[in-house]
Amino acid sequence: MAHTAHAESQLSDPELDRLYADFDHAHLNPLWTQLDSLMPGTPSPRAVPFVWKWSTLYPLAQRAGDLVPVGRGGERRAIALANPGLGGAPYLTPTLWAAIQYLGPKETAPEHRHSQNAFRFVVEGDGVWTVVNGDPVAMRRGDLLLTPGWAFHGHHNETDQPMAWLDGLDIPLVHYTDTGFFEFGADGVTDESTPDISRSERLWAHPGLRPLVGLDTRTSSPMAAYRWEHTDAALREQLALEDEGFSATTEPGHAAVRYTNPTTGGDVLPTIRAEFHRLRAGASTRARRDVGSAAYQVFDGSGEFHLGDTTYSVGKGDLIVVPSWVEWSIHADDELDLFTFSDAPVVERLGFHRTITRQGA
Amino acid sequence: MAHTAHAESQLSDPELDRLYADFDHAHLNPLWTQLDSLMPGTPSPRAVPFVWKWSTLYPLAQRAGDLVPVGRGGERRAIALANPGLGGAPYLTPTLWAAIQYLGPKETAPEHRHSQNAFRFVVEGDGVWTVVNGDPVAMRRGDLLLTPGWAFHGHHNETDQPMAWLDGLDIPLVHYTDTGFFEFGADGVTDESTPDISRSERLWAHPGLRPLVGLDTRTSSPMAAYRWEHTDAALREQLALEDEGFSATTEPGHAAVRYTNPTTGGDVLPTIRAEFHRLRAGASTRARRDVGSAAYQVFDGSGEFHLGDTTYSVGKGDLIVVPSWVEWSIHADDELDLFTFSDAPVVERLGFHRTITRQGA
Amino acid sequence: MAHTAHAESQLSDPELDRLYADFDHAHLNPLWTQLDSLMPGTPSPRAVPFVWKWSTLYPLAQRAGDLVPVGRGGERRAIALANPGLGGAPYLTPTLWAAIQYLGPKETAPEHRHSQNAFRFVVEGDGVWTVVNGDPVAMRRGDLLLTPGWAFHGHHNETDQPMAWLDGLDIPLVHYTDTGFFEFGADGVTDESTPDISRSERLWAHPGLRPLVGLDTRTSSPMAAYRWEHTDAALREQLALEDEGFSATTEPGHAAVRYTNPTTGGDVLPTIRAEFHRLRAGASTRARRDVGSAAYQVFDGSGEFHLGDTTYSVGKGDLIVVPSWVEWSIHADDELDLFTFSDAPVVERLGFHRTITRQGA
Amino acid sequence: MAHTAHAESQLSDPELDRLYADFDHAHLNPLWTQLDSLMPGTPSPRAVPFVWKWSTLYPLAQRAGDLVPVGRGGERRAIALANPGLGGAPYLTPTLWAAIQYLGPKETAPEHRHSQNAFRFVVEGDGVWTVVNGDPVAMRRGDLLLTPGWAFHGHHNETDQPMAWLDGLDIPLVHYTDTGFFEFGADGVTDESTPDISRSERLWAHPGLRPLVGLDTRTSSPMAAYRWEHTDAALREQLALEDEGFSATTEPGHAAVRYTNPTTGGDVLPTIRAEFHRLRAGASTRARRDVGSAAYQVFDGSGEFHLGDTTYSVGKGDLIVVPSWVEWSIHADDELDLFTFSDAPVVERLGFHRTITRQGA
Repeated sequence: MAHTAHAESQLSDPELDRLYADFDHAHLNPLWTQLDSLMPGTPSPRAVPFVWKWSTLYPLAQRAGDLVPVGRGGERRAIALANPGLGGAPYLTPTLWAAIQYLGPKETAPEHRHSQNAFRFVVEGDGVWTVVNGDPVAMRRGDLLLTPGWAFHGHHNETDQPMAWLDGLDIPLVHYTDTGFFEFGADGVTDESTPDISRSERLWAHPGLRPLVGLDTRTSSPMAAYRWEHTDAALREQLALEDEGFSATTEPGHAAVRYTNPTTGGDVLPTIRAEFHRLRAGASTRARRDVGSAAYQVFDGSGEFHLGDTTYSVGKGDLIVVPSWVEWSIHADDELDLFTFSDAPVVERLGFHRTITRQGA
Repeated sequence: MAHTAHAESQLSDPELDRLYADFDHAHLNPLWTQLDSLMPGTPSPRAVPFVWKWSTLYPLAQRAGDLVPVGRGGERRAIALANPGLGGAPYLTPTLWAAIQYLGPKETAPEHRHSQNAFRFVVEGDGVWTVVNGDPVAMRRGDLLLTPGWAFHGHHNETDQPMAWLDGLDIPLVHYTDTGFFEFGADGVTDESTPDISRSERLWAHPGLRPLVGLDTRTSSPMAAYRWEHTDAALREQLALEDEGFSATTEPGHAAVRYTNPTTGGDVLPTIRAEFHRLRAGASTRARRDVGSAAYQVFDGSGEFHLGDTTYSVGKGDLIVVPSWVEWSIHADDELDLFTFSDAPVVERLGFHRTITRQGA
Repeated sequence: MAHTAHAESQLSDPELDRLYADFDHAHLNPLWTQLDSLMPGTPSPRAVPFVWKWSTLYPLAQRAGDLVPVGRGGERRAIALANPGLGGAPYLTPTLWAAIQYLGPKETAPEHRHSQNAFRFVVEGDGVWTVVNGDPVAMRRGDLLLTPGWAFHGHHNETDQPMAWLDGLDIPLVHYTDTGFFEFGADGVTDESTPDISRSERLWAHPGLRPLVGLDTRTSSPMAAYRWEHTDAALREQLALEDEGFSATTEPGHAAVRYTNPTTGGDVLPTIRAEFHRLRAGASTRARRDVGSAAYQVFDGSGEFHLGDTTYSVGKGDLIVVPSWVEWSIHADDELDLFTFSDAPVVERLGFHRTITRQGA
Repeated sequence: MAHTAHAESQLSDPELDRLYADFDHAHLNPLWTQLDSLMPGTPSPRAVPFVWKWSTLYPLAQRAGDLVPVGRGGERRAIALANPGLGGAPYLTPTLWAAIQYLGPKETAPEHRHSQNAFRFVVEGDGVWTVVNGDPVAMRRGDLLLTPGWAFHGHHNETDQPMAWLDGLDIPLVHYTDTGFFEFGADGVTDESTPDISRSERLWAHPGLRPLVGLDTRTSSPMAAYRWEHTDAALREQLALEDEGFSATTEPGHAAVRYTNPTTGGDVLPTIRAEFHRLRAGASTRARRDVGSAAYQVFDGSGEFHLGDTTYSVGKGDLIVVPSWVEWSIHADDELDLFTFSDAPVVERLGFHRTITRQGA
């Protein structure tokens, strides 16, 4: 949608020129000359739909592993996905940052903390523990790991193999809104033990149960890890229930779970939503548009993302970004497992959510 | 605490007598003659502390099983615990009703629904399925089963053994406040299948995960069952964490979980709180008083309840009632497992909660 | 609705007699013999619809004023409306208590506090100040005054005229649920000044504005008084807007406001809802039933209450009680102003609300 | 706070150069080279503290009034305050947009609507009506007027005098997050009547009262106007209460109110907080820092803003911007009245709020 032209003819008026110069001098800026770009008819993101292939990402991460040390200062060997529409900024979307983080054999990323909320999702490998506020959290394929804002955290690889994973943070939003703090912590990790599951899970990861020591409401989930076996089981059951004739899937052949904060039932982080979706082979999602931006990582299987007018073939590890209000749909060639995250909590908490689903299709 | 005397001398005044008679005739009632009993200094429940022994309850339930049929009309072979202070009313406390329900081999309790919220807790046995809104829910030792208000439900015993369990409802509160509806349903149960776990669990009992088809907030938990293996694991982990030096237990040697509604993180039912507590052998709870009434059922082990000035020895299956503001504490002789439920959500939602814990002790 | 008969023939069985005797001895009570009364098909209140005439109430209050002193012990010269269905208990309904309180010239009702939430509504007169937590609150015709639970309060009449008003409290609910505390305060009032408006109003009674010193959420409204001029203006505007063709009234000719807690937008007290309704001359409300009990006081005008099958003519000062689920409607002969209060917050917070409105009519 | 240097020496390594080139080619961006600027130790806004003088703003607005028409396309004669730190963008801060809007005699700004939330504050003049969803709202000195997201609105000046006022919107936030929609409406205004107060006020602006037709929770306040007489009275009372020895002011000599949404008690708009502050002559606020950005307009009086290390003298109409985490305090020379707005609801809803107040001072 475009705003109609306005008073263009006056632009050569010398008095008007003087006025605009005086505006400029006084640090003022007229609305009427820029309304179209400031307040477009529908969201008009500079961010564009894009797909990063795992086959590109992983080798580059490996090369970085050979060339760039991890340690205090740079802090993390994390390679951010820079949306081609955003002019080189290391941003996935205006609100979300995502990166491949790579930790070589026996390496340690030192502890720090920041206001920015973070998660990690593991598409392959294991052997790294992320230590969150002193609690060692094993990272394994299919797990979602949380590092809520202002929690100290470091990572250490206990194996002889490198490990890479997906990091997601709200860095662009925090940077843009000037709301972030950062603090260095220990140079190593504060607890080097390597338990199978974290203490947070031992306290919290029991379905429908809260420890009596944890009855307060928390801004972010107190569970440091959401394990693949639970996610997988939940999706499997939804599809089985559908087969048995019960309402359990989001759309035919489309199972989905949202990761939640057990103290509220809401999103795991105040700024980031995380979900996992499974499509049966041959299934498609209905085309829709949402306000707010999202990304997907293929966990398993292969299929197609339709983003605007373009179709992208995707496979394991590939990362797909869906900017605000871009029409999107997904088709599964074989059974397709997708991790997804978005800024939906921001959009919803601020009252800007809208969705339209294409009827028929 | 007692209010001081007032104007007693006037009670023989004939004019006053006439006034009181006229009040009576006009359906009026002076506050000043009854303030003490209407508004006592602290809660002064008519309900009394009491213990029902499983060794008494179960044989009586068995005899009822032999003599009283189950079926439409009486609806349930449920024998209510009648607090001795409540004048024969079938009430555990002013807000809570509890009963032993007994279902003989191959018997069926027909379907009905009511505004009253219900749970069942199984201290021994298995083989019965409760069918909640068409979803068959296996009942096994240690499980908490929910029947939120207005859900259709019936029970059927598929075995050659009888089974008994604890029912808890908010019948007295609903009766007192005139808020209840009741409706008959099918004469049998609407789904006679006998799955290991219910469809509600297949959708919901995955730690920290919500199905995308269930993103709305619910008054009551959508999980029909909370299984013993999860409860037991959560308590075991709390005690293990305590052994490892971490903060996880409510008091030293006292592990506890609250059953919650995963859509809110709050109580499973709007009027009833349910928790499970485990005390190590030799552990004691600090003496405290709470506004609101509660009950305990010993699931395993033995110990003592101190209720006001009296000490009760308790063992497996025994049921203990703690009226409002009665001082209580628990001592475990050997490891003591306790299921407990209370009207705390009512007290808290209406703003009447208070607790005092005895210091020192 | 009636439950069908069950196993009546067995009642003469001697074994069954022994079982029932053993139940009794063990403080047990079978459900199947009493289900009908415990869990009726629809709310079946013992409380009945009733109207107390102001022409009866006020003279009796005057006589009490002559005969009964006010002071420590009896605390208040309050004459409670005893619902004829409740067996002489001084209860308006199972949850609500209401009384005419009468204070003679220069009399003082001493300070105390209690968990019970209270309001006062003034149908005529002025000259009394209620002092709430040290804040003197003038009482005048049409005003709603609040005394939230645990606020100290006393009343003093500064004039040479007696004054009477309506008191409403949640005494029966608090008594039934054993949740109340009571404490004596000063023998007089702690602030004898007689300002036109209270300090709480000076801080809070500005539309849409909160003082920065009051940004926390409160269980009860921080406004001690809701003044008639505001209520009247709000109702007048609704009817004027209706005249101008805009949607503003609840039903044609029926204006209504709810008194709210400005820190939440919710009810003024956690257990009591208060509203004011105005019907144009000739207007009627649609017949409806609600779960929960309510009462009305005619502030001005005259009309009819249809309660179940009975019609009551009412005029200024008359008090009408509507028990749970009784069908009710109101007709205004001339413009009819009604103050009303109910236990709706209790019913709603506990998830028991239902309403049906008769279609057509 | 600065991050320490990292691996700088490697920057000349040709292999590393190739890696960085390959990153670039693959739309990737290493974190370790830019952590300092992406995640600074404390908020490091590009926006700077700045003051726009009314004596500059108003004459420029007048000149625009002479030279630039108002009408479809440009839509509004609004001159935005462009923070000197933001590189010429028409943004007050990263989240807030503010402008002087100027409407000549008999002019009309046509109707449109947008997702962006807006308010107007009037520092001088009257005679314009803003028509919000068909409801004409008079604009007068001291009033706060709301246009919540997606409400149609136009303005028309009924007088022979021009009128200027302050507009505040969340344009930058909405633009940055790609969450905005815009739609044209009527070319004129849909209701040309000129009532003293709006229909929304007639329904809603009664302290502590809600119309029964408005019991739902609203994202934004349903009150289109907050009138000066109420704001002024509230502030006057706070200072009077302080004089009488009661706790009512935020700090000694510092009265303040927050404009609220009566359906929730929360902020008027989901993204913008609005408050009004009054300092007695000679009073000062304690120096503090807040996460999030704010702006002030002097409504009356004169004083000083200390922003970081700079002191600005301010008088009537002047506009002051306080970026995130800049230390600020205010001193009143004579009685100082200040309207203020900020992005605090954004910061709080997303969990990023922090404040520090300098002790002692």
